[in-house]
Amino acid sequence: MNYFGGIEAGGTKFVCVVTNEDNNIVAETRFPTTNPDETMSHVIQFFEQQNQVLPCPIASIGVACFGPIDPEPLSEKYGYITTTPKPGWRDTPITQPLRDAFHIPVAIDTDVNAAAVGEAAWGAAVGFDYFLYLTIGTGIGGGGIVNGRPLHGLIHPEMGHIRLPHDWQRDPYAGFCPFHGDCFEGLAAGPALFGRWGQPGDMLAPDHPAWELEAHYIALALQSLICTLSPKKIILGGGVMQQAHLFPMIRTQTLQLLNGYVQSPAILDDIENYIVPPGLGSRAGVMGAIALAQQVSHNV
Amino acid sequence: MNYFGGIEAGGTKFVCVVTNEDNNIVAETRFPTTNPDETMSHVIQFFEQQNQVLPCPIASIGVACFGPIDPEPLSEKYGYITTTPKPGWRDTPITQPLRDAFHIPVAIDTDVNAAAVGEAAWGAAVGFDYFLYLTIGTGIGGGGIVNGRPLHGLIHPEMGHIRLPHDWQRDPYAGFCPFHGDCFEGLAAGPALFGRWGQPGDMLAPDHPAWELEAHYIALALQSLICTLSPKKIILGGGVMQQAHLFPMIRTQTLQLLNGYVQSPAILDDIENYIVPPGLGSRAGVMGAIALAQQVSHNV
Repeated sequence: MNYFGGIEAGGTKFVCVVTNEDNNIVAETRFPTTNPDETMSHVIQFFEQQNQVLPCPIASIGVACFGPIDPEPLSEKYGYITTTPKPGWRDTPITQPLRDAFHIPVAIDTDVNAAAVGEAAWGAAVGFDYFLYLTIGTGIGGGGIVNGRPLHGLIHPEMGHIRLPHDWQRDPYAGFCPFHGDCFEGLAAGPALFGRWGQPGDMLAPDHPAWELEAHYIALALQSLICTLSPKKIILGGGVMQQAHLFPMIRTQTLQLLNGYVQSPAILDDIENYIVPPGLGSRAGVMGAIALAQQVSHNV
Repeated sequence: MNYFGGIEAGGTKFVCVVTNEDNNIVAETRFPTTNPDETMSHVIQFFEQQNQVLPCPIASIGVACFGPIDPEPLSEKYGYITTTPKPGWRDTPITQPLRDAFHIPVAIDTDVNAAAVGEAAWGAAVGFDYFLYLTIGTGIGGGGIVNGRPLHGLIHPEMGHIRLPHDWQRDPYAGFCPFHGDCFEGLAAGPALFGRWGQPGDMLAPDHPAWELEAHYIALALQSLICTLSPKKIILGGGVMQQAHLFPMIRTQTLQLLNGYVQSPAILDDIENYIVPPGLGSRAGVMGAIALAQQVSHNV
């Protein structure tokens, strides 16, 4: 009987869960992200309490972490949050305090890579070894699975920061990204909806022109991501994508932008199953952490 | 003693080579790409003649092929050129005629993926398992190596067709891509230089404003590709990149566009070794084909 721990470590809140051998969540807690010491103490306390009541202690822990992180096992700062602008969190070790406390394997990846791993295990990408998970919410990030493994590379992808065509006449909003102004995140994440229209996205009616423009930017990004990675499926999660009426608009505009160039039946004939919402819904991150925990447990 | 055959199958010309065990080219031919029957006959004839004079017959053949191709070994059309607009070449089998003629293993990949494999074997990416090769010439294409293997995915990447910001006031040229107008290829491949300035690139002086604009588009594309793939190195080949003065301009503008967001010493402190020309020069494609041949030979 194996129990696993999962942590969705976000910049605003932490979610910790324990799952049983049927991958059902048997315990859960969530608390605001304060400073690293206090936050990690809460995490450790939660799993210590669980270990006391479970039939056997948790076997391993996975962390789906806000970033940037160092995911390179051979690196000196493996398992650290590195250059985040979030006050107090720069150069913060995440995995080592958990290893020290529980003496079990601990895995870490970016929140979006973990969500992709979770979607591959139990969500919309079961059976896919090559796909893209994109979250569009307060920020925008992408996790890519290539040949069954998350993309890392030099550091890890930061797909929210690709550049897009920006028609300033149609949309004079300058974008809010402090680094790039009108990159994808700067133009299309939640704060851009608020900045452009003066209301949060979930206050805008489905027929508001905000959504056609939002779908336009997302489709521009998808066209570039399809041409760069050639994913076999694209999962769009995050708060903004809870506006379900965005999906048909995005599919239509993506097809228009590709303009028949990528001759694949998956895109041309079956776009409804090519660009899809997460199978795990808002659980993608934390269940991805569980999937990471199970992988690292099997590797030991 | 092992001899290998390599074919760089381009839309304009074919180059066929044979290498010896020291990876030196011992025979080479090149001829224009006409119709598939005639062209493939030339190829087969060349290798047949070589087999008669070599101490032993060639062990395997690799093809670095113009596309799109079907690189999926389990697919019905594996080894075909598929939806190319090139007259007469749509749905043309490339690997099977070679297997039928020589009864040896034959490998195929896109010209850019093959060039990347060649650069990893003997060029600028020796020791790198995660990098990007981009060719900027008559067209633009990208080959990505991730965890030591070329990116394929749904079909294969078409990195020349990502969308870029286009300041129409600065540059009223509409782009020449028949599918997307002002995508990366439409704005920055060789024909765009001619279309915009009325002269081919190699006639434009190094201080012509064409190059600052050209570097601008290439840097915009690199910024997006870095944010999507996080490559550990970027190799820029192709005819346009033979203008060596482009490299420092591209490096400077890429750093400006990233604006410190990707905190990696490889980029921030060592950009001269991060964005580089091919180590194999114009041999990248055909030596990539040889590398594919060697891999498929070892796999048998």
